[in-house]
Amino acid sequence: MDRKQDASKDLLSEVTILIENNKILELRELLEEYHIIDIFDIMENLEENDKIKLFEVLPLDMAASILEESDVEFFSNILSKLDTEHKKNILELMSLDDMADILSQLEEDEREDIMELLSQKDADDVKELLIYEEESTGGIMTTGYVQINEYMTVKEAISHMREYAEDAETIYYVYVVDNEERLVGVLSLRELIVARESNIVKDLMSENIISVFVDEDREEAVRLVSKYNLIAIPVIDREHKLKGIITVDDIIDVMEEEATEDMYKFAGTSEQERDIAQNINKTPTEQIFSSVRARIPWLIITLLAGLLSSAILSNLDFIMNPKYASLVFFIPVVLGMGGNIGTQSSALAVMSLSNKDLDFNNVIREAIVGIITGIICSLIVSIIVFIFIKDINIVLVVTVSLFINMIVGAMIGGFMPILFKKLDADPSIISAPVIATVLDITGITIYLVTTTIILSKIA
Amino acid sequence: MDRKQDASKDLLSEVTILIENNKILELRELLEEYHIIDIFDIMENLEENDKIKLFEVLPLDMAASILEESDVEFFSNILSKLDTEHKKNILELMSLDDMADILSQLEEDEREDIMELLSQKDADDVKELLIYEEESTGGIMTTGYVQINEYMTVKEAISHMREYAEDAETIYYVYVVDNEERLVGVLSLRELIVARESNIVKDLMSENIISVFVDEDREEAVRLVSKYNLIAIPVIDREHKLKGIITVDDIIDVMEEEATEDMYKFAGTSEQERDIAQNINKTPTEQIFSSVRARIPWLIITLLAGLLSSAILSNLDFIMNPKYASLVFFIPVVLGMGGNIGTQSSALAVMSLSNKDLDFNNVIREAIVGIITGIICSLIVSIIVFIFIKDINIVLVVTVSLFINMIVGAMIGGFMPILFKKLDADPSIISAPVIATVLDITGITIYLVTTTIILSKIA
Repeated sequence: MDRKQDASKDLLSEVTILIENNKILELRELLEEYHIIDIFDIMENLEENDKIKLFEVLPLDMAASILEESDVEFFSNILSKLDTEHKKNILELMSLDDMADILSQLEEDEREDIMELLSQKDADDVKELLIYEEESTGGIMTTGYVQINEYMTVKEAISHMREYAEDAETIYYVYVVDNEERLVGVLSLRELIVARESNIVKDLMSENIISVFVDEDREEAVRLVSKYNLIAIPVIDREHKLKGIITVDDIIDVMEEEATEDMYKFAGTSEQERDIAQNINKTPTEQIFSSVRARIPWLIITLLAGLLSSAILSNLDFIMNPKYASLVFFIPVVLGMGGNIGTQSSALAVMSLSNKDLDFNNVIREAIVGIITGIICSLIVSIIVFIFIKDINIVLVVTVSLFINMIVGAMIGGFMPILFKKLDADPSIISAPVIATVLDITGITIYLVTTTIILSKIA
Repeated sequence: MDRKQDASKDLLSEVTILIENNKILELRELLEEYHIIDIFDIMENLEENDKIKLFEVLPLDMAASILEESDVEFFSNILSKLDTEHKKNILELMSLDDMADILSQLEEDEREDIMELLSQKDADDVKELLIYEEESTGGIMTTGYVQINEYMTVKEAISHMREYAEDAETIYYVYVVDNEERLVGVLSLRELIVARESNIVKDLMSENIISVFVDEDREEAVRLVSKYNLIAIPVIDREHKLKGIITVDDIIDVMEEEATEDMYKFAGTSEQERDIAQNINKTPTEQIFSSVRARIPWLIITLLAGLLSSAILSNLDFIMNPKYASLVFFIPVVLGMGGNIGTQSSALAVMSLSNKDLDFNNVIREAIVGIITGIICSLIVSIIVFIFIKDINIVLVVTVSLFINMIVGAMIGGFMPILFKKLDADPSIISAPVIATVLDITGITIYLVTTTIILSKIA
């Protein structure tokens, strides 16, 4: 890791010196040795003027790749500084799915200006890509694929592929269509180059195609690419016409987004908060208000629910009885332990549900886990409480209620996500704050009932 | 999604009927149309005898692919049923990294038996793969790559590639080494097939190689493949000799494991619990004991820390003063709200830390978020408490302590992961239960101080 970071640091200072001394040729040669991502990284650390200078020096294909990596601000900032011809040439080389992603974030008129610079075909393709929802497979697909007709020979297919290779995001799969443009097969480049030149594509291709519909959730594409170890997956419409492909690098991007999304939801906040918190271009004020917006709904819900525990607590007689006043001391720890085991078991259930179905057996399993950990924790608590308070009644109330509360906590934590799933609601709504609040309410009730029963038996 | 599940359901019943009627040829033809993963899926749902029958019908390469997907029990179960020659032929076609993964989980003697069936070269390769730690890049790499010498011509390189293509996991990159077997360049199949046959590899190859060391953490490979959009990454030793490659499908598997790992840690449990909970071959007893083992350390730690809040609470004078007894009612909600906002802000900090460095400015930002959300929640609480209790002193204590507690909760949640990172400890130790317990202790202290100050002013 250090190795790579050092490399880009060196590159940054080298680049700055070359720009200062106006050594354009040397700069261009130096940049051609580096990966586009590293060049993009150092551009983000350059001053405005140097950034533009460096961009103008780049060969057209590298400039296009830089724009593919960039966000919308970087994109429109750079483009506003270039003359029309230069702009046109770079845009022509950009991957259309990345362009559509950026254009979708631009204002109407700025978008129109850029669309006018595109060739008719590219403009049509981009327009079509702009229609699809961000969360759908259409929203992440690209039109940069190689498509061949099923009746081509291998020789024709290879020469067709060479011709279209430049615009393709991947040439490792070629997609085979019939005369109605319907996807009927797939052929890997590997199969194509080891085949005899006179063979017909139809006889070689695999007809067992793993594909997704253009309006499906993009997570379905992630699932299939991951399950079948694909490098790209074709996207078709409901008439089975080929509309685009999704390559594995875009699948990885989606996975990274979705992985952190789960954790944010579990902590009771949202993806917007993450997106803005991780975006270095946002001001602190924007970050703060996005955090407030994301968190406040859950905070208000748990606050109102939490006041329920206050209402229940107000029924506890022992508060008025000085003899048992010390029972109040153990309210936080009894409630807290229910919340803790509930958080653990709900996380297990939420995560397991994303891979497979869980049934209510899971709740029984959690109950047993609650019983075992409850016995261990109750033993510890009974010893400590006895040492300090030496009142067997108080020890009994605290120990029994802690024990019951941990079992209930484990069961509720394991049960709520399953219940939500059965009700066709999103189980990831079950966040740690929600579980903690629900378990505060049940915990207080358990404490109330336990003390009432035990103390009445004694009295 | 339904489409695919239905397909495998249909396949399962078709297969069962063909096996029952002993229609071997038809079965073989049917299976060849399906993806290996689908066949593996239905094998898991077949009865023992049918499973073996189906496996024996499979062409050798498909049988090898099935074993690559399988876990250790499936693997040794199937192999124990085959004769030596058949076993040998299948093992020869297996990818060595998958074989090493499975062999590493076998008993010593069973492993030796299988190693004896391998060719000398394969056995040596597997032995080397077995040395590397599971969490290192060496632990997930494969030796199935195509390596060419830098002085080969394009023509020689292509014919070399064709020869070794069958054993290679990917042929989309070929790796260029010098005469000492050191990695000096990389060439994509794409570049190779569009180049002139007489060109020398050294003149075409890219020398700017993204690689990982064989003893680095596998997450470094994930980071680089994701950052540079690679399909495979070469693995080298410290002398820069090429040892293997990691393909993007293995990167995706690691990402899936690591993503859930973060969430489990945040919920205060561990990856072992997840692994066993997600393994359908484990008995309920094994699952329960793995859950207890994973959770009990955090439960005991939070229990002991939680008893600290009991000790602090025992200093609260108002418990003994019936006039202010109702202040007890609000302990759970005041503590709970600190815990909730702390969970949110700690999740944000833990997740952000995995991408970039955070400084203590983050704590200031969290403090401001705490102030804004605190004002909103305090207003709500003050109105509700006033309606029900109508004692302005109690309203004041509850509102002020809730407000302070939310600010402290947000700051501590945002601060602890950063502190851990600065101390070179793993910030993901900061789990929701730990945050909740710490905030119970600070929350009780805040409540104690607030009530003491406000009530003494009044008295």
